Amino acid sequence: MTMAKRDTYTPESLLAVAVEVFNERGYDGTSMEHLSRAAGISKSSIYHHVRGKEELLRLAIRRALDGLFAILREPGACEGRAIDRLEHVTRRTAEVLMAELPYVTLLLRVRGNTDTERWAMERRREFDQQVAELLKQAAAEGDLRDDVDLRLATRLLFGMINSIVEWYRPHGSGHMDGDDVAETVVRMAFAGLRTSASA
Amino acid sequence: MTMAKRDTYTPESLLAVAVEVFNERGYDGTSMEHLSRAAGISKSSIYHHVRGKEELLRLAIRRALDGLFAILREPGACEGRAIDRLEHVTRRTAEVLMAELPYVTLLLRVRGNTDTERWAMERRREFDQQVAELLKQAAAEGDLRDDVDLRLATRLLFGMINSIVEWYRPHGSGHMDGDDVAETVVRMAFAGLRTSASA
Repeated sequence: MTMAKRDTYTPESLLAVAVEVFNERGYDGTSMEHLSRAAGISKSSIYHHVRGKEELLRLAIRRALDGLFAILREPGACEGRAIDRLEHVTRRTAEVLMAELPYVTLLLRVRGNTDTERWAMERRREFDQQVAELLKQAAAEGDLRDDVDLRLATRLLFGMINSIVEWYRPHGSGHMDGDDVAETVVRMAFAGLRTSASA
Repeated sequence: MTMAKRDTYTPESLLAVAVEVFNERGYDGTSMEHLSRAAGISKSSIYHHVRGKEELLRLAIRRALDGLFAILREPGACEGRAIDRLEHVTRRTAEVLMAELPYVTLLLRVRGNTDTERWAMERRREFDQQVAELLKQAAAEGDLRDDVDLRLATRLLFGMINSIVEWYRPHGSGHMDGDDVAETVVRMAFAGLRTSASA
């Protein structure tokens, strides 16, 4: 038997390890044994920090949700025309997704088998609905093209933003600057890829 | 022991059952036993049709890839300005994704643990590269805005299209018309959501 390493974890650093394992194996496929091995400390040491894997999931999801919901309280999301607020929220959602990449990735992959997962999906839907509300307002103010279905546009907008988790890596080869990514999402979604001359 | 039902499968109908199971359990998580149970016929009956689960995967992936690559040979993808060809390919890719939903879903989820999966990923990359090439040509012809990175725009475009598999269902409540979905993808990606007056 190998000696477990000394437990120098803080709640945050333990959470970071757990989220990595959840994203790799899926939450359902992760046991306390997997977490113990990845962290290099015993299961009882983990229980010293948290009640179990569902609490780690809840902490991780809360971190992602806190980041996302904070966007909706920013001045850029609350003041001005709806279309400009919508652009702000789009840019900041992409930024938060990249800044909190493993946490938002986990949030997006949650499937709903436990109370915590169902709560996560419920809160995520709430966020989407608030953004959908902004689209509706922008349409009412005449700033959104009237030949697209708003429910569909909301889905495609999130589809584009959320797809960033599939390939964005903050370090390493082929790294893209996060600001450029967020800006390109906004340009593409709101102004489109065509030059106006070619339209 | 319950009698297995009489084997009236054609290769196509057996494939449809297998793809459903692959998408539900993941390819790695699917055994011949799972396939036998879902199809309601014995394992040896399945072996009468195919050599094993990897052959079913290969047939399913080939169906998705045939549909996608056929788009690139359509007149709309070969004639005219690159920007118009790109719009055609975007619309048709969304359409083929919806028409061949379970097959394309499987293609998008493949992870690369077997030869067949690696081949699938390789061919998918080839398709993406041919679309990236169209973006490059459209940029060279001055029809694509010059303030977006082409590699990034390609990824976001596919991110938006591929996200359709997450929510599109051909039947049932909340059904959206496939043509509307494809048209909205094109409008959003190429012209943007803003009305020109508000830009």
